Amino acid sequence: MEIRSSTKYFAEMVGTFSLVLFGCGAAVVSGISTTGPAGIGLLGIAIAFGVSVVVMAYAIGGISGCHINPAITIAMLTAGKIKAGEALGYIVSQFIGATIAAGVLYCIQKGLPGWTPGEWALGSNGWGPGYLAEYNIASAFLAEAVLTFLFLFVIFGTTSKWGNGTMAGLAIGFTLVLIHLVAIPITGTSVNPARSFGPAVFAGGKALEQLWLFIVAPVVGGIAAAIVWRVLEKK
Amino acid sequence: MEIRSSTKYFAEMVGTFSLVLFGCGAAVVSGISTTGPAGIGLLGIAIAFGVSVVVMAYAIGGISGCHINPAITIAMLTAGKIKAGEALGYIVSQFIGATIAAGVLYCIQKGLPGWTPGEWALGSNGWGPGYLAEYNIASAFLAEAVLTFLFLFVIFGTTSKWGNGTMAGLAIGFTLVLIHLVAIPITGTSVNPARSFGPAVFAGGKALEQLWLFIVAPVVGGIAAAIVWRVLEKK
Amino acid sequence: MEIRSSTKYFAEMVGTFSLVLFGCGAAVVSGISTTGPAGIGLLGIAIAFGVSVVVMAYAIGGISGCHINPAITIAMLTAGKIKAGEALGYIVSQFIGATIAAGVLYCIQKGLPGWTPGEWALGSNGWGPGYLAEYNIASAFLAEAVLTFLFLFVIFGTTSKWGNGTMAGLAIGFTLVLIHLVAIPITGTSVNPARSFGPAVFAGGKALEQLWLFIVAPVVGGIAAAIVWRVLEKK
Amino acid sequence: MEIRSSTKYFAEMVGTFSLVLFGCGAAVVSGISTTGPAGIGLLGIAIAFGVSVVVMAYAIGGISGCHINPAITIAMLTAGKIKAGEALGYIVSQFIGATIAAGVLYCIQKGLPGWTPGEWALGSNGWGPGYLAEYNIASAFLAEAVLTFLFLFVIFGTTSKWGNGTMAGLAIGFTLVLIHLVAIPITGTSVNPARSFGPAVFAGGKALEQLWLFIVAPVVGGIAAAIVWRVLEKK
Repeated sequence: MEIRSSTKYFAEMVGTFSLVLFGCGAAVVSGISTTGPAGIGLLGIAIAFGVSVVVMAYAIGGISGCHINPAITIAMLTAGKIKAGEALGYIVSQFIGATIAAGVLYCIQKGLPGWTPGEWALGSNGWGPGYLAEYNIASAFLAEAVLTFLFLFVIFGTTSKWGNGTMAGLAIGFTLVLIHLVAIPITGTSVNPARSFGPAVFAGGKALEQLWLFIVAPVVGGIAAAIVWRVLEKK
Repeated sequence: MEIRSSTKYFAEMVGTFSLVLFGCGAAVVSGISTTGPAGIGLLGIAIAFGVSVVVMAYAIGGISGCHINPAITIAMLTAGKIKAGEALGYIVSQFIGATIAAGVLYCIQKGLPGWTPGEWALGSNGWGPGYLAEYNIASAFLAEAVLTFLFLFVIFGTTSKWGNGTMAGLAIGFTLVLIHLVAIPITGTSVNPARSFGPAVFAGGKALEQLWLFIVAPVVGGIAAAIVWRVLEKK
Repeated sequence: MEIRSSTKYFAEMVGTFSLVLFGCGAAVVSGISTTGPAGIGLLGIAIAFGVSVVVMAYAIGGISGCHINPAITIAMLTAGKIKAGEALGYIVSQFIGATIAAGVLYCIQKGLPGWTPGEWALGSNGWGPGYLAEYNIASAFLAEAVLTFLFLFVIFGTTSKWGNGTMAGLAIGFTLVLIHLVAIPITGTSVNPARSFGPAVFAGGKALEQLWLFIVAPVVGGIAAAIVWRVLEKK
Repeated sequence: MEIRSSTKYFAEMVGTFSLVLFGCGAAVVSGISTTGPAGIGLLGIAIAFGVSVVVMAYAIGGISGCHINPAITIAMLTAGKIKAGEALGYIVSQFIGATIAAGVLYCIQKGLPGWTPGEWALGSNGWGPGYLAEYNIASAFLAEAVLTFLFLFVIFGTTSKWGNGTMAGLAIGFTLVLIHLVAIPITGTSVNPARSFGPAVFAGGKALEQLWLFIVAPVVGGIAAAIVWRVLEKK
């Protein structure tokens, strides 16, 4: 029986909500040591983002395919694996889910004594002076585009005729862990326009001004991977 | 052949024992650096709790379904997937297992020179002044309820007709890792009334006074997820 | 076709060699920060020991069952799943593999400027004054026995009629990660007489004097789990 | 339908590109704490290299077998599992992929304020005075040869008639995590001539002078494992 589009959209919304709440939540709440045990650090943040995709892949993969990322949906559209109308529904749901997650995280952080909402206080992406290791815009664009290419390369590979259905979700989520292990000091790591949008809405300022790169670069990388796999699968 | 209820209860007891001994044990014994290598930190504690569920899911999942958490049992009852009488047996077994684990941990800690049992000395949950990052009660309740919702959302999803039986245990346990990556500084992370009960019995004081929240919030979140999935599966 | 006993013994030897070289090697070479990036800490050491079992379970599980631990072999003997003669061959191979690994590690460490072989220099197990957090002997025995019980509980569970053959190796190895997350500050974590024997032979002194506990406690815990599962499987 | 050699070569090139970009990228960009959360440390670097193999095994394993390492290709040739002509194509593709990855990483690092390309600035392998813990050449050779032996031992085991096809990729990649958990302070960990070649080309100096060891030792260890498994599989 065909799954209804509304069910798929709901799954994408919850999935993206989960990615942003777990990923940005881990970074913001637990990233840095407070009292007692050491904070989770860049390794823990990388695991939080990537493993969110692992668990959602197995929870909603059978419903919507678990894109939870507009760059993936657009790459799938390029590859002819989703229709334009449904792709639009997916993307809208992803942006809504990410924004609600940032809102919930905002509410949780309000209960932390002395917390003040700042430009990067909810895990926004960015680059340049004042942002983490202060890499320049060229590095930011290059990293986001190349890493999204590799993300989609693994997604197309593991779900191709040569892939293993049982392990695909694990491989795809683990790839997002790898991407974060490289890129957090550069851009905070997006490879996902919705994940950047949610926190930026609440953060405003530079987070909103720099948002365009986290839409353009991932989409460019994702489309490139879609084209490469169209060629590979025809051979 | 039908598995006897007593076998299931025993499995739930050992499973919950294991979750509390591994999770709280890792936090209390290894969380902070002592001598030599760095302590496991929040990342290691998160892994300890979540991976306990992974391993028990594969060890006893075929016997009892591996709830090892009263919030899960109540959500399963709401979803009509367990009978009321058996659910009660599960919950009692979970509380017994968690309490024995806290007792064993107490005995182990007594052999540590200079150790004194304090309110949080066995890994109790809590919030507010004096507890980790000192988040307020609203944040504590919101985090526990929303995160338990996501926990059960993944549990229902991975065990639904759209899920993958082989990977369900991994996805469910990894979700508990994610939940801990976000919430340890807020409440120590419960999402499981039995896990909070065991250490609180030995700790007394605030740990016992604040126990109610770690019963109410997880149950609320779990029931919400059960209702959402009843709707999703009917479509 | 029946696999020859000599092939099984060789597999057990390489498997135990691998466990000790990876586990003790990670602890000794990479445990503490030297220059540059932070050392792997207790979390990394725990992962090294446990994941060694994961990879060997899939590499040699089909040949010998991948015990690579005399406590497991004795528990399997108790459960009637291996014959006495073959069990003896397994155990001898495990001790040989562990000892060769400690020897290789000794050779590697000799190439580290300023390194001197000390009582704990190759990752020996121990307890009491001068050993890590200095837990007493009662805590050491209790921890080793209870944790080996849980180790074997998961092994019997995942390989029982209710288990999942594909995921058993992962669950079993992850359980060893959990055991190390709890017990490194207490005893360095053995739950495996061969793993304790190899480094102790080269370390001598207290490491050798205290070796008996890492033979007795794991065997007691393992036999207890074998008995519990005999009862469970009969029901 | 037979997969074309050119498709296999392309897969090997992207796979090796990915291994070097993720592994060396994680080490160089995120290894050490900069601002905010702690750097990923030796544990995170080990995970980056090993998990790259996990994800690529599932993405391209069905196309090329996912060697992405000349030592593996030569071991497979020794074992009679690949033809000489195709092996050559694999190895050339691996060196090209690794070199492009080092180039991309160089471009990214150029955008980091104050960064200067040094001998080890792109994650080169080495040993002796000035390189990490300063182990001598004997330790470096022994570690690289023995660890590559274990790497190939797991590869042959998990893909043998006794292995589990679904879990092989996970076990193989996790073995590379283990290898890095032991050997980063010794040689930075190669066990892969292509992975050493890419960064060395850009680094020059000692990284290039010491490159021979990271070709010879892994190939020796890999061939030894191939011979052992020829004997094991005949029995």
